[in-house]
Amino acid sequence: MTELLLRDATVDGVRTDIHVRDGRIARIAPGIEAPGATVEDLGGRLVLPGFVDGHAHLDKTLWGGPWVPHSAPPGLMNKIRNGVVRRPELGIPSADYVTALLEHMVTLGTTHVRTHVDVDPEVGLASVTAVRAALERLDGRITAELVAFPQTGMLISPGTVELLEKALEAGVEHIGGIDPAGVDRDPVKHLDVVFALADKHGVGVDIHLHDRGTLGVFQFELIAERTRALGLAGKVTISHGFALTGADPQTRDKLIALVAEAGISLASTAPSPALPLRELNEAGVAVTLGNDGVRDLWSPYGTGDMLERAFFQAKHAGFSTDEDIALAVDAASLGGARVTGLGAYGVTVGAPGDLVVVDVRNSAEAVVLRPVRSLVVKDGRIVARDGELV
Amino acid sequence: MTELLLRDATVDGVRTDIHVRDGRIARIAPGIEAPGATVEDLGGRLVLPGFVDGHAHLDKTLWGGPWVPHSAPPGLMNKIRNGVVRRPELGIPSADYVTALLEHMVTLGTTHVRTHVDVDPEVGLASVTAVRAALERLDGRITAELVAFPQTGMLISPGTVELLEKALEAGVEHIGGIDPAGVDRDPVKHLDVVFALADKHGVGVDIHLHDRGTLGVFQFELIAERTRALGLAGKVTISHGFALTGADPQTRDKLIALVAEAGISLASTAPSPALPLRELNEAGVAVTLGNDGVRDLWSPYGTGDMLERAFFQAKHAGFSTDEDIALAVDAASLGGARVTGLGAYGVTVGAPGDLVVVDVRNSAEAVVLRPVRSLVVKDGRIVARDGELV
Repeated sequence: MTELLLRDATVDGVRTDIHVRDGRIARIAPGIEAPGATVEDLGGRLVLPGFVDGHAHLDKTLWGGPWVPHSAPPGLMNKIRNGVVRRPELGIPSADYVTALLEHMVTLGTTHVRTHVDVDPEVGLASVTAVRAALERLDGRITAELVAFPQTGMLISPGTVELLEKALEAGVEHIGGIDPAGVDRDPVKHLDVVFALADKHGVGVDIHLHDRGTLGVFQFELIAERTRALGLAGKVTISHGFALTGADPQTRDKLIALVAEAGISLASTAPSPALPLRELNEAGVAVTLGNDGVRDLWSPYGTGDMLERAFFQAKHAGFSTDEDIALAVDAASLGGARVTGLGAYGVTVGAPGDLVVVDVRNSAEAVVLRPVRSLVVKDGRIVARDGELV
Repeated sequence: MTELLLRDATVDGVRTDIHVRDGRIARIAPGIEAPGATVEDLGGRLVLPGFVDGHAHLDKTLWGGPWVPHSAPPGLMNKIRNGVVRRPELGIPSADYVTALLEHMVTLGTTHVRTHVDVDPEVGLASVTAVRAALERLDGRITAELVAFPQTGMLISPGTVELLEKALEAGVEHIGGIDPAGVDRDPVKHLDVVFALADKHGVGVDIHLHDRGTLGVFQFELIAERTRALGLAGKVTISHGFALTGADPQTRDKLIALVAEAGISLASTAPSPALPLRELNEAGVAVTLGNDGVRDLWSPYGTGDMLERAFFQAKHAGFSTDEDIALAVDAASLGGARVTGLGAYGVTVGAPGDLVVVDVRNSAEAVVLRPVRSLVVKDGRIVARDGELV
């Protein structure tokens, strides 16, 4: 396996060398000698941990295809219906589009993705197949874990539960859910089915929860109860969690204590207002950021850039100091690694050789500027340079 | 003067050539012959009007200097005080920093700027001098108009009115104001002084109005009364106007009717929620977007990119269709031209040769991606290429 020596890197404000061997960071020190290693002189550029996109919908993307003017009427249910109706006409899911998006994400320094993948009676498991085919084409330049996602509802969409189970039998890593009350209209039954599947197949849980206010809070509680009862601490994620973004301080503190105690992590796409990242951090809750859908039938927006997502989190949370802004960068890398269970992660000895190099002075400036990624390293292999795939 | 022929441009969805002569767009048609002209083959790339930044604070910037961690406590008055205290230590205003930022803005396709420039007893007219020195160095690659801006208050800061008048006598194009109630504590007197100066010196008015709610609405009314009384329709701008962003529908409609009738234009930095651009457009109100402060003592954020500002406007206003997103691009170019009184503007015969070329299919995609500017043309002269100053 190749060895890589990053010479004259800036790590946490210090100039140093980084030696990556067998896909892992072997040494971090100034003046490392590593005969035979590929040497990259960074000239003091900043090295950050590879970004982890903890909430994506790769299967929905139109990236790399024709420009499709947005056509969905406002409202969650309208967008769901529009997606189902227009999907076939546009050739979605497409392994080509997923490949194009994954390649683009590699050039932006993303090294691992958790992607929700639609599973419903119309599409069957075709989205799982498309995403896996694309990942194979990427040949390890980026890794991913899948969530079998009942986008069109589960109880309200007969046949979906059976398909979700098929996806899990086919090795999909997590079982998803969507607004157990707001979409599926029966929060207890929805969550009982989801958690029973998780328990039976030994997989993680990641539930889309857009429901706001007291209905959202109630479902946070239902999820926490099931997480505790089944001993799933560390394996359950609530995505979006809009009941927490913009909550009054009392509700916010209650929900933070609840998820901290139950070992539930959060995935956010950094809306305005954003998750209270500082407070979640202090309570020890793992938080990942994610790009959500990137140029699909839900929205024409999205660039796939996790530094941009960190920018949204920082900006929408009102972060201005270097320390606060760094929290957002950490959520875009370390937080994602924690949520997705990557183990030891970061620019630290023993962690995977997943690194991003940017020509800025610190992580705050990286968020402010979101510059071209000079170098992206995945498992010790250079996978992108100056915004181009290697 | 040089002639420029842009061959195979996409303008409003149509492939065509653009001939720029004597600094103005002379012809737009396919297959133009222009012997002696510099020819640029755009290969179908999109041509947009040059961007107009209608609300900047060039004199405050630290662009091109050392990274300065943010230190201002929250709150408008705290930020004002922090700026005054730390300015000398950091060498602000600096013609070098202003030059660096203007050069960067040129590479991003901005062709004209309205910049507020601090005038107060501590700094005197040094900010005016610094901005003008920087503009001279830019040698016509970008143009600007100045607003003499009482950042530290006017009535509460003795000596400021006299300095503002000096600035106007020295040719500064507009008189500014700041929260006549919230900052200066006497809305009627503040506005009477500002409008008297405008009337006496024949200059435009551009007032920062952060005051929200009914206090903000009241000041919209006071400004409209004075605009009407002095016949200043078309020469008065309200910047920020937070009483309108996020207003309830009834207040929103009332304020829109008010500014439309009085001939007041609006400048927005596209906060969340954003100005109701669609409704303002329908009422015929001129709206410009602006980057506000870019990396200064007020905020570490800012890139100077007007396409990014259009993105914020579009995103924060909930725009998704191509038509809606195009409104934000128009505000970033045509709207700014209207507010700043540039006259005929746009990709149209007779308008100035102020153009931006981007490798996307339409203006919605330009907002979504905010790509490197392939070419920037100011007054018919190529001033930037592929993100680098020419």
